[in-house]
Formats: sequence, C-alpha cells, structure tokens
Amino acid sequence: MKTLPLSKVYQLLEPGPVVLLTTAHKGRANVMTMSWHMMVEFEPPLVACVVSSANHSFSALKATGECVIAIPARKLAPKVVRVGNSSGRDIDKFKMAGLTPAPAERVAPPLVAECFANLECKVADRRMVNRYNLFVLEVIKAWIDPAQKNPKTIHHHGYGKFVVDGAAITLKSRMR
Amino acid sequence: MKTLPLSKVYQLLEPGPVVLLTTAHKGRANVMTMSWHMMVEFEPPLVACVVSSANHSFSALKATGECVIAIPARKLAPKVVRVGNSSGRDIDKFKMAGLTPAPAERVAPPLVAECFANLECKVADRRMVNRYNLFVLEVIKAWIDPAQKNPKTIHHHGYGKFVVDGAAITLKSRMR
Repeated sequence: MKTLPLSKVYQLLEPGPVVLLTTAHKGRANVMTMSWHMMVEFEPPLVACVVSSANHSFSALKATGECVIAIPARKLAPKVVRVGNSSGRDIDKFKMAGLTPAPAERVAPPLVAECFANLECKVADRRMVNRYNLFVLEVIKAWIDPAQKNPKTIHHHGYGKFVVDGAAITLKSRMR
Repeated sequence: MKTLPLSKVYQLLEPGPVVLLTTAHKGRANVMTMSWHMMVEFEPPLVACVVSSANHSFSALKATGECVIAIPARKLAPKVVRVGNSSGRDIDKFKMAGLTPAPAERVAPPLVAECFANLECKVADRRMVNRYNLFVLEVIKAWIDPAQKNPKTIHHHGYGKFVVDGAAITLKSRMR
C-alpha cells in the first residue's frame, strides 16, 4: 500500500462505488458494506455517510469515532455481498468473507488488505447522527495499492444488482 | 415521462451517477451538474447533496427550497460538461447546452426533458447548509422516461474524466 495524497481522495469516492466500512470496538473488528456516502469537501477530505442504527457497526462508529473506508474492485463483489448478508453481532465477518484485516496507521479499525484503496477516517461531525444516522467523517490518511492497476468499482442498484465500471471517457472540463 | 414509485428512487441515486440540478428563482430557471449526493432514507426518499455556495444555484435553492434532480444517460455527457463549465449568473444554461426545460408537477424548477429520470424535491433540512453547503432534500415526485431502456449513467473521477456504466451483474443479496 502506498500513500495517496489527501487532495485526490474525492476522485475515488465521488463516482459512487460500493465501499466497505471497518470499525473496531471492545477489541473486535467489524466490516459492513455501504453505498450511502458522498464527498462534502475536497481538502481536508470530508465524507458524509449514513450507517443505519440497525447495523452492528453503528454503535462502534458512534462510540469510537473511527472507521476505515475500503474500496473493493469488481473481483471482490462476491465477498462484498457476503459481508452485506450477515451481521457482525454474531460472527467474525472478515473470516467469514475471506477478507484480511491489516493494521491502519492512525486509527484502530483495520484496513482491508484486498481493497485497492483504504481511507482512515475520524468522525468530524455528529450533529446529524440522531436524526439521520448521518456521520461526517474526515479522511486523515489514504492508501492506494499500486499493484491494482485501473481497478473497476461496482455500483449498487438494489437487491444485489450491481453495475461494473465500463469505459472511461474524457471531456474538456473546467470542473475539478 | 411516467411516474416512478418513490420506493424505487434510491435505486437511481445510490449508484452515484452524475446528475443535473435545476432551480428557479425570480422567474429564471437554472441548471448545474452535481456529483456530491447520497441517499439518506428509502421512503419517503431523502437525499443529501452539497451545492457549493460559489454556484449560482446555491442562492436559488436556499431561497426557494425547491429543485429537480435530473439523471442524464451517457449520450448527454457533452451537454453535462457544457453545463458544468459555465455559470447561470451570465447565461441561460439550458439554451447554451441544448437542454429542454419541461414543467414539473409539484415544484417550480423545471424537469430536463432529455434526462431518463427526474426527481422533484423540496428542501427538508437546512441545518447543515451554513457549515457544509449540505442540503437534505425530500423527493416528492419521481418521473422516468420509459423510452430510454437500460440507460447507462456516467460517474465523475475529476477533471472531466468519467466512467460509463459497464456490465450489470446480479449476486444473491439480502441487502435492499
């Protein structure tokens, strides 16, 4: 894993990929799938996300204020769905899904070794948690796996239907 | 345009497509491009989005509390970029980009006739506007164009680089 400049984080999340979210609480790491996230600020990168209070990860995130957003490429889709189909209340989801937790640098929750990008985050704003389960996160450290070239991400359309990234096009844009 | 059940709106926005946002203020309609949005609740559908206060649309959205989120398919990409490259402060962006405003049913801002889906929205929560330019919208009416079959959306990776939807895959998922 190589350090990614924080100024480039938005280019990973803005396209809307399905991501994994890891937490650690009372000595146990957990992982969930997530599609409800968006960029809020370029730099320092702020990310909003919704973690349902029905998820076991919710209480860990609320209690510790730390998480890792890990971005899986297409080949991990079956594991991503296995993570989404189960609860960390009962089992070790890393083991169950065949994913490898790896130590992060600045937070307690683990990176996911198989993912092509990992973003270490701290909760920056909790004001919308009670009403919407909406956390504002600050990305404080970003990692990219240089061995995974041009990874294709997946996008969830509901009920296990995913669309995989297709062709890339470049248009003359003034938009950052 | 056909009515889309509100319970299905999340399937359009959750995958993270680039969208257009229309507003209407003091008798003038405007349109901007947007990638910073996410679902917050299934039904009634709540959507969070960030509209930079540097955008002309920001003051219209803040003043009127109404907008339309229009979702363009791949063939509209050049028009989407043209919209993103200019400001409604100076010009009629619909005309400039060759997009057709069409009357909405429950809000003043127009639908975009060329888009395959249009979501009429009212601002539901302004508490994060001052700090993050973050609006929580409620979708109150949704339209889908049945003539556009399996539209491929586009996802922004920064600086005019877009990835177009590729293959769809379906995995056995318990996730809604």
